[in-house]
Amino acid sequence: MTSLDKNHWFTEVSDRDGSAFSLRINKLLEQQQSPFQHVAMYETTDFGNLMVIDGCTMVSSRENFFYHEMIAHPALFSHPNPKNVVIIGGGDCGTLREVLKHDSVETVTQIDIDQVVTEMSLKYFPELCSANDDPRATLLFDDGIKYMRDAQAESIDVIIVDGTDPVGPGEGLFNHAFYQSCLAALRPGGVLVQQSESPLMHMPLLLEMRAAIKQVGFGALQTLPFPQPIYPSGLWSVTLARKGLGFDGFRACDPDALNTLYYTPGVHQGALAEPPFMTKAFNQQG
Amino acid sequence: MTSLDKNHWFTEVSDRDGSAFSLRINKLLEQQQSPFQHVAMYETTDFGNLMVIDGCTMVSSRENFFYHEMIAHPALFSHPNPKNVVIIGGGDCGTLREVLKHDSVETVTQIDIDQVVTEMSLKYFPELCSANDDPRATLLFDDGIKYMRDAQAESIDVIIVDGTDPVGPGEGLFNHAFYQSCLAALRPGGVLVQQSESPLMHMPLLLEMRAAIKQVGFGALQTLPFPQPIYPSGLWSVTLARKGLGFDGFRACDPDALNTLYYTPGVHQGALAEPPFMTKAFNQQG
Repeated sequence: MTSLDKNHWFTEVSDRDGSAFSLRINKLLEQQQSPFQHVAMYETTDFGNLMVIDGCTMVSSRENFFYHEMIAHPALFSHPNPKNVVIIGGGDCGTLREVLKHDSVETVTQIDIDQVVTEMSLKYFPELCSANDDPRATLLFDDGIKYMRDAQAESIDVIIVDGTDPVGPGEGLFNHAFYQSCLAALRPGGVLVQQSESPLMHMPLLLEMRAAIKQVGFGALQTLPFPQPIYPSGLWSVTLARKGLGFDGFRACDPDALNTLYYTPGVHQGALAEPPFMTKAFNQQG
Repeated sequence: MTSLDKNHWFTEVSDRDGSAFSLRINKLLEQQQSPFQHVAMYETTDFGNLMVIDGCTMVSSRENFFYHEMIAHPALFSHPNPKNVVIIGGGDCGTLREVLKHDSVETVTQIDIDQVVTEMSLKYFPELCSANDDPRATLLFDDGIKYMRDAQAESIDVIIVDGTDPVGPGEGLFNHAFYQSCLAALRPGGVLVQQSESPLMHMPLLLEMRAAIKQVGFGALQTLPFPQPIYPSGLWSVTLARKGLGFDGFRACDPDALNTLYYTPGVHQGALAEPPFMTKAFNQQG
């Protein structure tokens, strides 16, 4: 067995899951301790560049398309005419790029607490930042929880919560107070979407999150699974909720025009076909 | 960082992928060097029991349902009336159990070269072996390549190739001679299905396999992606081919009656919605 020595491998040990995932690296490109977290960038042998925050893999060049496309497009296409979008977190700017592919969008405001993440992304993931200069985009480096608390009522069509796990700076993005702010800030029919961990490994957390979103008054929920190779289990999810309404399908797009690698209307429809292991867990919750 | 010492973690290093995956273990339950391969069984902390063959994770209690359901049901439901089924490999018997859920099936013959795999599965994955005594099932321990070469022409409706990676004993399951045997043994309209590695990580291998299947004279192909948490990238695939015909949809089932955790007609339809990163690679091949 090759030993996973620290000079040649980055390893994320997920104690809560009893699993670990490693990528072989050529070198550490840069690391910084920001006021909020430790941000490191590695050059890997097979996954391109890899961003690691507080020891957890966040983004790699090779496979970030699954995540960024699935947190952006299902939510935007589930809204009839999204004009004003807010991204909480999302500092690598890959979600922003996908959102700006939508012609209906007039403004996107991204609020990430940590400017270091965006600075590193600009250097090592320039392809994710290719839309940062779009005149419709505003990048703020601030507290997203406070931003949502202070947001004007009924001013936003889609809120995308593209944060880290519910520990550290991301913790406040998974509770009633935050969801209440989101509900108030959304226009009627507005859509909230949040990364919602692994439906295989983190079902208790997902159930808790779904319960909180329902309790503050959102309507029907949709939890869409998708591949996420560098996160625990390789299976991840986003959860969508709509203000005042259920979901009534989604707008179909021309996938060639959207220039995606994973998302298509067919993939979206497929992700809505909830596997029984998820349905059973959701139903047990009631 | 927790060190991944060998007493507490099983690690599979995938050199070809530049990645490694580890599961935390309580103990090694048993290991045997069979005439064909090294077979080990671990008790993990979070994934139940884990079978490892020649250092590669094969089956865990927790997540084998993705694989076994997706290698069995799409192929069987793509055939109008499958009566005679052959499984090459499949020694853990999980695929056999899924096949036997189909009432139309009259005989299933499973040919795995290594009896040790089935003996270990009987001990440590009894739930996968719950249908082994079904009178429709025959378990042979023999060379599946030779079995297919000697099979009566046009005698089989569905051939399921549930083998290891194309190295070691599994190597001969990925070439023209084997696919020719399969084509000859299938009745017109018969379906071949084979595990076809990770569409994210192993596209060159997948393309080679698809090309070989086409070259021997099969009609249209379908490559269906699905989650496979303990295999490299967590995203795996099966590839289906049909003798003499294209695919004309699939029979819809009652998923409750099928008692699956992942497969439903909706999930099947979703897996047929080929993501652009796969379509682009397939089209480049022509």
